[in-house]
Amino acid sequence: MVSAPSGTGKTTLCTHVRQTPDLVYSVSCTTRTIRSGEKDGVDYFFLSRAEFEKRMKSGQMLETADVYGEYYGTPKGPVLEHLAAGRDVLLDIDVQGARQIRASQDPKIKAALADIFIMPPDLGELKRRLEGRGTESAKQIATRIEAADGEMADWKSYRYTILSSSMEEDLIKFRAIIRAERYLSRRLDLQHG
Amino acid sequence: MVSAPSGTGKTTLCTHVRQTPDLVYSVSCTTRTIRSGEKDGVDYFFLSRAEFEKRMKSGQMLETADVYGEYYGTPKGPVLEHLAAGRDVLLDIDVQGARQIRASQDPKIKAALADIFIMPPDLGELKRRLEGRGTESAKQIATRIEAADGEMADWKSYRYTILSSSMEEDLIKFRAIIRAERYLSRRLDLQHG
Repeated sequence: MVSAPSGTGKTTLCTHVRQTPDLVYSVSCTTRTIRSGEKDGVDYFFLSRAEFEKRMKSGQMLETADVYGEYYGTPKGPVLEHLAAGRDVLLDIDVQGARQIRASQDPKIKAALADIFIMPPDLGELKRRLEGRGTESAKQIATRIEAADGEMADWKSYRYTILSSSMEEDLIKFRAIIRAERYLSRRLDLQHG
Repeated sequence: MVSAPSGTGKTTLCTHVRQTPDLVYSVSCTTRTIRSGEKDGVDYFFLSRAEFEKRMKSGQMLETADVYGEYYGTPKGPVLEHLAAGRDVLLDIDVQGARQIRASQDPKIKAALADIFIMPPDLGELKRRLEGRGTESAKQIATRIEAADGEMADWKSYRYTILSSSMEEDLIKFRAIIRAERYLSRRLDLQHG
């Protein structure tokens, strides 16, 4: 799973990483409004609050988070199915969600888990990137910058931390981590008994 | 540190990896005869038994091993100097030596440590590779194949295991591991307090 404050470039990074063989992107559910260019079922499953809460209550979510008043969550079924088939699953997840997944007692989730934090260069640069994106209001940007400050304090909880520089550099680092994790003896151990 | 049974291609791999920036190859000491094409101080420091034993007794060795009746060992000073300067140090080491390094109580060694085992495809292929190299007698090859069988049992003690295929593939995997290890949060933790 990968976390980063808004504007760090995590979504763009994940879009590139999705082309990696044997790596499946976990499509999250959300109640937030669909943005221009996004596709339902590709970027997110866009759900009503009622539908989201129903799924949450019936235990269909691996984790859920309330971010800026909107629900986000990872559907459990697809993740477990992909892991059972020997595929790596990429979760693009916020720090709240990451904490819930880390606390999971499911042995399959625990064994599969690897987490990466993308650390933005600094808050000023983050603000410039968010402004450049032009999808949030000035008020939303201010809220996100404040949140980023808190989220950045969580980096030590992640096994890996990438100090964000260019998209190309971040991608090389990200791919190296995904590759290297596959050669952990304890993972081979799982596969070959 | 990297270990592999003789003939797995570890030395060739390490030769390629030595070109990685900020990675320093630890030149081992040995009492074995210098082979054609090898250079003293580059491939090994070729020492007499008396000189090797003197250094071993005065605590100048990080680990020592007796392999097929010859001493091999890692000089301690250079490794600690490189680590202090923030450089990664590559140790090409056998399973006996790896066990000694893993048992080290030096906090700098413990913090820096990452270990990789290169697993040969099978013993038949290993024998073919050793025969193709043409540097060992039939008797030496037989001894090495027997040793390889024992060494291969140690793979689970290594954090990473690469199932050897082609040199190119092994190198890509090896480099990914070296890169990814640099992004471990606990290593950044060490650098930035």
